[in-house]
Amino acid sequence: MEPAMKPVLRKVSAAEEFGAIEAFWTPRVAGELNGQLVKFVRLKGEFEWHAHANEDEMFWVLEGLLTIKLRDKDIHIGPSEFFIIPRGVEHKPVCQDECRVMLFEPAATKQYGD
Amino acid sequence: MEPAMKPVLRKVSAAEEFGAIEAFWTPRVAGELNGQLVKFVRLKGEFEWHAHANEDEMFWVLEGLLTIKLRDKDIHIGPSEFFIIPRGVEHKPVCQDECRVMLFEPAATKQYGD
Repeated sequence: MEPAMKPVLRKVSAAEEFGAIEAFWTPRVAGELNGQLVKFVRLKGEFEWHAHANEDEMFWVLEGLLTIKLRDKDIHIGPSEFFIIPRGVEHKPVCQDECRVMLFEPAATKQYGD
Repeated sequence: MEPAMKPVLRKVSAAEEFGAIEAFWTPRVAGELNGQLVKFVRLKGEFEWHAHANEDEMFWVLEGLLTIKLRDKDIHIGPSEFFIIPRGVEHKPVCQDECRVMLFEPAATKQYGD
């Protein structure tokens, strides 16, 4: 698989990346390693129920409180906490107030799932 | 490749993970996704010069200041900043005071390189 972004020898600052993000639910790719993308995203409100058949996805919360709704329970994650959604598991991200998140997922992942 | 750790449906707290780490330079595996490991590690002092022939490695700083020495320059990273060391690039992590870091690397990565 070709990497979606050529690795560059520079550090990346979350503050600078978020400064370049205007819209909610629009991930910004900030890095690539081993075919995985590092993305920053601003979340507010609700996203669709979806699942990724072949990719695990990680949410690492930087600011705010994020609820990951699963079909049988809710997972609440705050700053410096993360949650990995295994492939095939239906989930729905929800946050009342703005939440800033770092995402890790394969370059092939589609935002709305399969 | 078999994952080194079965994904579990629970959130992970950096504070709790660091509470379980006693020694410097001893990464603690906190999660696995897509064959990649999420690790927490406490750093202080200097590590060996090394490189990973086949794996890119990401350092995300949570606390403290970390210098990644490369052969031609130094990269200084602080909280909420990250740096990806592409495969094959020699590097040497250095920090005078304690630094707390989240690492992402493939499950197969050897700490001292190849």
